[in-house]
Amino acid sequence: MQTREERDSIGKKEVPVDAYYGIQSLRAAENFKITDLKIHPRLVRALARVKKAAAISNRNIGLLSEQKAEAIIQACNEVAGGSLKEQFIVDAVQGGAGTSINMNMNEVIANRATEILGGEKGDYMVVHPNNHVNMGQSTNDVIPTAVRVAVISMLEELSEKVDELHLVFKDKAEEFNEVIKMGRTQLQDAVPIRLGQEFNAYATSLLRDKKRIKNTIDDLLIINLGATAIGTGLNADLEYVNNVTSVLNDITGREFQQAEDLVDATQNVDALVGVSSVLKTAATNLSKIANDLRLLSSGPRTGINEINLPAVQPGSSIMPGKVNPVIPEVVNQVAFQIIGNDTTVTMAAEAGQLELNVMQPVLIYNLFQSIEMLKNGIDTFNKNCIQGIEANVERCKNLVENSVGIITAINPHVGYEAASRIAKRALEEDKSVKSIILEEGILTEEELDEILNPHEMTEPGIAGKKLLNK
Amino acid sequence: MQTREERDSIGKKEVPVDAYYGIQSLRAAENFKITDLKIHPRLVRALARVKKAAAISNRNIGLLSEQKAEAIIQACNEVAGGSLKEQFIVDAVQGGAGTSINMNMNEVIANRATEILGGEKGDYMVVHPNNHVNMGQSTNDVIPTAVRVAVISMLEELSEKVDELHLVFKDKAEEFNEVIKMGRTQLQDAVPIRLGQEFNAYATSLLRDKKRIKNTIDDLLIINLGATAIGTGLNADLEYVNNVTSVLNDITGREFQQAEDLVDATQNVDALVGVSSVLKTAATNLSKIANDLRLLSSGPRTGINEINLPAVQPGSSIMPGKVNPVIPEVVNQVAFQIIGNDTTVTMAAEAGQLELNVMQPVLIYNLFQSIEMLKNGIDTFNKNCIQGIEANVERCKNLVENSVGIITAINPHVGYEAASRIAKRALEEDKSVKSIILEEGILTEEELDEILNPHEMTEPGIAGKKLLNK
Amino acid sequence: MQTREERDSIGKKEVPVDAYYGIQSLRAAENFKITDLKIHPRLVRALARVKKAAAISNRNIGLLSEQKAEAIIQACNEVAGGSLKEQFIVDAVQGGAGTSINMNMNEVIANRATEILGGEKGDYMVVHPNNHVNMGQSTNDVIPTAVRVAVISMLEELSEKVDELHLVFKDKAEEFNEVIKMGRTQLQDAVPIRLGQEFNAYATSLLRDKKRIKNTIDDLLIINLGATAIGTGLNADLEYVNNVTSVLNDITGREFQQAEDLVDATQNVDALVGVSSVLKTAATNLSKIANDLRLLSSGPRTGINEINLPAVQPGSSIMPGKVNPVIPEVVNQVAFQIIGNDTTVTMAAEAGQLELNVMQPVLIYNLFQSIEMLKNGIDTFNKNCIQGIEANVERCKNLVENSVGIITAINPHVGYEAASRIAKRALEEDKSVKSIILEEGILTEEELDEILNPHEMTEPGIAGKKLLNK
Amino acid sequence: MQTREERDSIGKKEVPVDAYYGIQSLRAAENFKITDLKIHPRLVRALARVKKAAAISNRNIGLLSEQKAEAIIQACNEVAGGSLKEQFIVDAVQGGAGTSINMNMNEVIANRATEILGGEKGDYMVVHPNNHVNMGQSTNDVIPTAVRVAVISMLEELSEKVDELHLVFKDKAEEFNEVIKMGRTQLQDAVPIRLGQEFNAYATSLLRDKKRIKNTIDDLLIINLGATAIGTGLNADLEYVNNVTSVLNDITGREFQQAEDLVDATQNVDALVGVSSVLKTAATNLSKIANDLRLLSSGPRTGINEINLPAVQPGSSIMPGKVNPVIPEVVNQVAFQIIGNDTTVTMAAEAGQLELNVMQPVLIYNLFQSIEMLKNGIDTFNKNCIQGIEANVERCKNLVENSVGIITAINPHVGYEAASRIAKRALEEDKSVKSIILEEGILTEEELDEILNPHEMTEPGIAGKKLLNK
Repeated sequence: MQTREERDSIGKKEVPVDAYYGIQSLRAAENFKITDLKIHPRLVRALARVKKAAAISNRNIGLLSEQKAEAIIQACNEVAGGSLKEQFIVDAVQGGAGTSINMNMNEVIANRATEILGGEKGDYMVVHPNNHVNMGQSTNDVIPTAVRVAVISMLEELSEKVDELHLVFKDKAEEFNEVIKMGRTQLQDAVPIRLGQEFNAYATSLLRDKKRIKNTIDDLLIINLGATAIGTGLNADLEYVNNVTSVLNDITGREFQQAEDLVDATQNVDALVGVSSVLKTAATNLSKIANDLRLLSSGPRTGINEINLPAVQPGSSIMPGKVNPVIPEVVNQVAFQIIGNDTTVTMAAEAGQLELNVMQPVLIYNLFQSIEMLKNGIDTFNKNCIQGIEANVERCKNLVENSVGIITAINPHVGYEAASRIAKRALEEDKSVKSIILEEGILTEEELDEILNPHEMTEPGIAGKKLLNK
Repeated sequence: MQTREERDSIGKKEVPVDAYYGIQSLRAAENFKITDLKIHPRLVRALARVKKAAAISNRNIGLLSEQKAEAIIQACNEVAGGSLKEQFIVDAVQGGAGTSINMNMNEVIANRATEILGGEKGDYMVVHPNNHVNMGQSTNDVIPTAVRVAVISMLEELSEKVDELHLVFKDKAEEFNEVIKMGRTQLQDAVPIRLGQEFNAYATSLLRDKKRIKNTIDDLLIINLGATAIGTGLNADLEYVNNVTSVLNDITGREFQQAEDLVDATQNVDALVGVSSVLKTAATNLSKIANDLRLLSSGPRTGINEINLPAVQPGSSIMPGKVNPVIPEVVNQVAFQIIGNDTTVTMAAEAGQLELNVMQPVLIYNLFQSIEMLKNGIDTFNKNCIQGIEANVERCKNLVENSVGIITAINPHVGYEAASRIAKRALEEDKSVKSIILEEGILTEEELDEILNPHEMTEPGIAGKKLLNK
Repeated sequence: MQTREERDSIGKKEVPVDAYYGIQSLRAAENFKITDLKIHPRLVRALARVKKAAAISNRNIGLLSEQKAEAIIQACNEVAGGSLKEQFIVDAVQGGAGTSINMNMNEVIANRATEILGGEKGDYMVVHPNNHVNMGQSTNDVIPTAVRVAVISMLEELSEKVDELHLVFKDKAEEFNEVIKMGRTQLQDAVPIRLGQEFNAYATSLLRDKKRIKNTIDDLLIINLGATAIGTGLNADLEYVNNVTSVLNDITGREFQQAEDLVDATQNVDALVGVSSVLKTAATNLSKIANDLRLLSSGPRTGINEINLPAVQPGSSIMPGKVNPVIPEVVNQVAFQIIGNDTTVTMAAEAGQLELNVMQPVLIYNLFQSIEMLKNGIDTFNKNCIQGIEANVERCKNLVENSVGIITAINPHVGYEAASRIAKRALEEDKSVKSIILEEGILTEEELDEILNPHEMTEPGIAGKKLLNK
Repeated sequence: MQTREERDSIGKKEVPVDAYYGIQSLRAAENFKITDLKIHPRLVRALARVKKAAAISNRNIGLLSEQKAEAIIQACNEVAGGSLKEQFIVDAVQGGAGTSINMNMNEVIANRATEILGGEKGDYMVVHPNNHVNMGQSTNDVIPTAVRVAVISMLEELSEKVDELHLVFKDKAEEFNEVIKMGRTQLQDAVPIRLGQEFNAYATSLLRDKKRIKNTIDDLLIINLGATAIGTGLNADLEYVNNVTSVLNDITGREFQQAEDLVDATQNVDALVGVSSVLKTAATNLSKIANDLRLLSSGPRTGINEINLPAVQPGSSIMPGKVNPVIPEVVNQVAFQIIGNDTTVTMAAEAGQLELNVMQPVLIYNLFQSIEMLKNGIDTFNKNCIQGIEANVERCKNLVENSVGIITAINPHVGYEAASRIAKRALEEDKSVKSIILEEGILTEEELDEILNPHEMTEPGIAGKKLLNK
């Protein structure tokens, strides 16, 4: 392999002659052989756009020449557009608060810009990674900013998927609105409910997730670009500091605001913990729904079997004809991953020290993974499962009619003790609640028909209204 | 011990004759000998108020007689006021979604109301725990409602403590505004900062915590009172369902709203996960601050020693004169507890099934503990530590003057490479940055004085403005 | 309240005249108002025994006078026996690595010993908390040692409870050995199994938990008594260092060994993380069993209903006759608590710095809580649930006969594709597998009877042995 | 793209004509678009070896023809050797307990074996994925077995890295044995220690990690091969069941044992939770060491600066000459990841139900990631950091001489109170402890030289032996 020699403050090193990355990227790639996973492409894209904003701002105030600025901007556009992907060689999990990500970007942009200006890769006299590409910047402001640029887009996409799932649950709620079935609490027969009510509850819970996601996006619009190393803004021209956010807004079409307290904004990552927490909360909601669907579709012959999930693949290598709820199962697993990632995010956040949180790379890796897995999990849940769910209407009906739980509606009419006694007798003698009440002459058939109307039992109100005592 | 016999659907049992609790409380106390911790008094108080709202509502629509209602209301007032504490005998961690808490309350109120009406404890013909005290209610709506009633108050108290700490940090920020010191990233010398900027950052981070707490309070104002067993409202009179929330608002002075989707509101606890997440996020912020203060006060002779924490107790049983940062240390530990509790809360939430989350008792226990520990931790932090912090101004100043990190300000004037070389030489030869630059004739003393002005280095801008190349 | 004045290096303070604790305990109690929970009595007892070992050792080598030693030993015996409990006033969660626990003990012992020798409480000239009671010791060796003394006993008690539960599951396995039922994977009908096999599996899993608990006990027998402040043993006489462990062994009847590397043993708490991990692993096993029992007992009319759990209390405040699996539910919650506590323990362990882990108080609190809750949870599980489980033999049998899953046994005889087709047809046409096979003339009734023998299907082997193709 | 049509119980589907995978793999790849990460190559390799063991066993007892068996074995060897990697297309996180992994393997082996026998890919009459490759097996026994085969090797490699790091710490301990420095507890000056003692403690802690890893390997040697679907061994010939483990031992050179209770071994994953717990414990130890090294190397001018870490890359994009402890930092992050993964593993384990734990894919993904990251993290720690650490001997010495903490050695001679007073005075008057003692005439210079001998202070014993009072 042909190489060129590069130097940094540590010493010199051979870099592949064709590489757009430089000596610092290479050192980092060698120092951190940890996960074999690279920087998330969404972060690469976002960082390139942040670099572009900085170049424009520095040019506008005369700190960066037109020529250099144009070359840097073109290089940033190319990288943001997906070019030179393979030049980002540093591990996702790395020491430093993203210095190696930032330097990898600085070197790639510098070399590409140098090339654009007719120079040779490695000739940093033309465009220098630190002096020009990183001008007025520090890892400690560009990385947190780029993370926010990327995460907001990702959360918007996630939010859309949540919305789609919400709507599909709403459709199903309507479709199943008249399917009367037994409700269960603590896995024990409770009182009747409509399947549509259950699916509507799933839909409703997703609205809160959506709202929580929306709230975190607002928090992420506060950025620290211009803060440089520790929030004091040292080495960034005051005019640059005042303008760079609005340039970034032009590029991204967002409404970012510079943090009023840049020192705080540079050292604290609680906004990201907030995002992870919201993902975690959504994951618990989804996992609960997945658990429910697995229960309701259990069987087909020896379980609850009130609904059928669509069969998306054979369920077993040994048991023929078995169809398993594999889509809810993967949703559960996505949830477990996100909950575990939240622990990692929290520990990384807690480990910040003084002017900087150096543990951001692992935090970022986990946060990005959580968002993507949640998005993918929801999409798969929606398309490969929820949309195709069918109700076993007869089965649902039979279970209600056969149940003892409907005794609850009798309660206001006969009192808790008598009702308890009837329920017990029904179970012990394997009879229906109704037959015992009639047998004992407690209520008439007419009264019972009114009180035990299954549909009425799924709405508020005391059926019959004839109450025991006050 | 004298006893009275009580009966329930399981059988009969001797209850101490003086007990206000009844057979079901006693069974639960025997079934769950888990933690030796009882129901949180704030939950007892809140539940009594919910019971009162139900009694008033049922009376208003004629379902409950005036006489019984008045007795129940009086009993609720007494319990809410702190009476009969020792009658709440069930373990904080228990099976059921709080049924034993609810029945303990129903029995205590029923017996006390019976007593008020001249009856004997245990004579449930007068006032019945289920038929009267629990009228139109289920554990599954009163417990979640009572939790919200209690938690909102607790969060408001917490929020006040956050505010107080914020203000103390603000005061300290002003007090330390002119104390120039070295900033550190990755525990390595970075660039100058003012101690006041650091304390201001602590203050600022607390504002976000406060906002997040506020947001969760809004979420908690949605309640499911009237939902009864599974959100369908079975056995609650429609008029009761429509009115009970406003009665509760009269009692509590809050603006609770009945959830539009009561089925969802009865089975999902994500609003509580949201609270726990916000506590966790606040805990990470506080733990980071505590870590910083421990670092900055380290020494006194062999550490950083830039600040002094107030000495609140002798530090060692063996090392005389040692004073330790015990208050920040306990804040760290509070944070670890809250983060662990969040894992428990999350798992409990994920384990909800179908129409109910039965794991709420452990969730509630952890949530209440987290709020109280955070409140106490913040109060102790404020009063026993932050208020008494003093700056070692001379030490701070000497460290800046002695540092190599100020080289950063030279960067725009000589370029990153040259600056790196000077920094390296300074360290290797144990010289000051300034002396090397002068020795090498790179900049004049006049230029250096301008560029290396410590105060200027703590604000945005490129000192001197004479830049290398564009 | 009458007081006496005491002094320490911070200043002076009024202490209640009757108090056995002194100024440092009081300061700590005021500094740390965090949880309202006190030091665990098992730790108090263990620490008193460690103090006794130190006093004997120091007396034996002539550093402590006979008279003082005797008084200290008597005081230690009293405290270890449960006296003076209310004198331990410091919060369980506190700054310092247990210094306040240690000083609370030193002061109580000193004052009691002083009293024994005829002195007045507070007159530390007679017996001094630091110079005499704490002689040759530091918080940093006595606290970790006392924790190990206490935890080993607690783990032994836990282990016994695990054993008891194991045996009860074994009994049940035998009782249910001939109850043929459907196995389920992924909540879908799989192939037949015997209920006894399921209960035997629960029994077996507990054996591994027991072994893991045993292993951690071995690890805990390594102690750092004699290490003093940081493991170097400064201020402990060499003879004392060499003898104190064997004195402690005489007192406790254990075989503690002094760590070879006392510096390591003083700063690292991984042995305690190991214990917490083992508790967590046991908790997941138990929670899985609890989940299974809740599934298998679901119904009674609309669930699986293969087993009945004993009814230990009425299940609902509103639904008469409802009986819920409250004991398994509390076991789940115990598991969630222990898993959350493990996160806290882990973070506390990770936060150790240099010569000491100062976060031990919160670690200890969580560890002790986890052990006790697991012990109590297992005991309740055993006595209030497992012992009383009954099988619904007919229901189990009917579900097997009605199932499609038995098709698996046909597999080796007709191939996976044909078997899949038959299974699908059985479900679609709501027929039995057997009738379709006979209808299609694939196998004879005789062959089927051999192949589909339910008991044979619960053991290894290919029923019928007539295989399709090789 | 040219395709072939394949069928399964769900229907038919076009598969790329060249693909070795088949319809079920393709369905799974489409169903689970979750992480973009594929099955870990170590698991692929291990599973191929398990398949080989099954083929040999089935051949040996005449259930599988020689010809088919040979072709399958060859195909397994190829895959185990790293061929056909790109044919494993299913996502690492997937529904089902690994069914899609198993079927992906069954299809690849079947098609490759068919090809070897001269057939066309997709012609499963020659070698069938289920009937032949999966003969006598189920996902539920081959996947857990393959996981154990893979994990044991990976743990051995990890153990070796732990050992290497242990030895390097031992070397450093010897190298630094005479470097006297201040010990610190709670970040405050404590008493002297030798740097070699600190490094020896790091070495010692790793020995426990190694032992714990070893213990889990023993646990993993228990496998459930032969259990088939739910541990009852249905459809596996008895002879096969009895022999297949020893065939696997021949292939792997291990001493696997078949579980006595196959039902338990098929449904419980606590052995894997045990592994994850041990990784987590090792991670906390390593993270603590990393934290220490970052503290000790802090500075260089404004921190502790007792040691130098090797400079492996420039530390900052903006601050010239800055060198950061990036290697310890990445070790911290590795630890946070492993701790978070442990939460995921725990939740996945807890979610097992009845005869199977279907959440194993996410558990496996996290476990494998944890092992690899820990191995890589340790290796990087060793080679890029620990080996190159240098002591700043003079700095260490100066800090000791300047410290107040040495007062502790005076304690036994003058008592705790007097020593406290001297310490306080030293700090307030900024004098040395020695000068004050001499000034006050408490001890002679000769006595002091004996008592304050720094080397003596790093070993047990009471310097000077002249004690105050007994």
